[in-house]
Amino acid sequence: MISKNQLKLLRALGQKKQRKALGLFLVQGEKNVLELVGSGLSVKQVFATEAFLAENQHALSGYECVEASLDELTKASTLVSNNAAIAVVNVPSFTLPNADGLMIALDGVSDPGNLGTIIRLADWYGVEHIIASHDCADPYNPKTISATMGSFARVKVHQTDLPAYLARSTLPIYGAFLEGESVHRTQFSAAGIVLMGSESHGIRAEAAQCVTDKITIPAFGGAESLNVAMATGIILDNIRRQHS
Amino acid sequence: MISKNQLKLLRALGQKKQRKALGLFLVQGEKNVLELVGSGLSVKQVFATEAFLAENQHALSGYECVEASLDELTKASTLVSNNAAIAVVNVPSFTLPNADGLMIALDGVSDPGNLGTIIRLADWYGVEHIIASHDCADPYNPKTISATMGSFARVKVHQTDLPAYLARSTLPIYGAFLEGESVHRTQFSAAGIVLMGSESHGIRAEAAQCVTDKITIPAFGGAESLNVAMATGIILDNIRRQHS
Repeated sequence: MISKNQLKLLRALGQKKQRKALGLFLVQGEKNVLELVGSGLSVKQVFATEAFLAENQHALSGYECVEASLDELTKASTLVSNNAAIAVVNVPSFTLPNADGLMIALDGVSDPGNLGTIIRLADWYGVEHIIASHDCADPYNPKTISATMGSFARVKVHQTDLPAYLARSTLPIYGAFLEGESVHRTQFSAAGIVLMGSESHGIRAEAAQCVTDKITIPAFGGAESLNVAMATGIILDNIRRQHS
Repeated sequence: MISKNQLKLLRALGQKKQRKALGLFLVQGEKNVLELVGSGLSVKQVFATEAFLAENQHALSGYECVEASLDELTKASTLVSNNAAIAVVNVPSFTLPNADGLMIALDGVSDPGNLGTIIRLADWYGVEHIIASHDCADPYNPKTISATMGSFARVKVHQTDLPAYLARSTLPIYGAFLEGESVHRTQFSAAGIVLMGSESHGIRAEAAQCVTDKITIPAFGGAESLNVAMATGIILDNIRRQHS
């Protein structure tokens, strides 16, 4: 059973302020919770149905588990579905990488669904680090975690002063602009930073001045733009076809 | 002002059954409504704010326009934001194409957001026709239209008996599977059908037996899959780099 205080904590972690203050975040859904096992993330508690706990007894043996009904879990969850398991996890602290192969940088990407999708893409294309400006979506927002489809456990998102980080970097910085060299013709380096801006503002001036190579995804029809996560995926695919 | 009967109609068009019965659908938001102009789609009525009507007087001159307050429009809308304009549009009827360059086929892609994103992608990559199985999302669902970001006006979605359509086709049919030839190494034809399945069921047996070439997006990290719209975008990019 979920106690009153535990329910209060779960509810609180839906808010960014509380996540920051407590250094904790929520991982919800069976698949996402199982991704925690072996991930190196430190799990405080797992709340789950009897069936889920029985089925994953071995995997969850190191964790403090609390059995709860699906009804209780649904009430505690910030999601509309997929509530057989909820974990409370410590926000990890990472060291900001200097130059680590292929990396992604995000300038003002504020939608948690887009950030989560980009984390999933990073994981697909073997990118370990995402450098995000302070005004990007919170990587520990439940909507972000949910959109990663489990990839949150393998990709590190660093929120930092992005223009300062880019200015210090010695890697080529590939900035996605509507004008720029076609990614079908660009010769990419194996190590580099793919810099993406928000759909509404693009890459802002402070970050843009660090770009070494302006790139673009060629259009063949009438659409004006692509979603930022979509564009990130297509660019990563173009880089990995040269450097696998 | 929006009359009681007009409000009833706008509300009704949120439902698939009513769209089918009336042969009408909704286009919401300033950008989407303006995409109607010159699209060839037959517009029944435009409900919009005084400011929007004044600003776009010339473009909207052929349409029956009803001025309404933002408050009224927000009440009538099925969307949470972006309600300065709502158009009621006749569902067009298209002739099913035989072989028309590069095409997309969708088997059971039931999420309207994914379908809308794929319509936007088709427009970006110059694909005019999408052939969709009967159990795909409704192309005239307000969520689909909204996700197209205006591309609904340039791309034709045909709902039909997909396996029968594929069986009749003489084009190469590129089916996206988790196993298959890497899209980085596939030699694509200029004309062909890219067949995508749903995230939960993949391409089902009936459609799969028509596939002439199994293709796959190579993975370089730990993620198990990509979203169906994302995968469609990456595949189209790989084809267009060979045939622009």
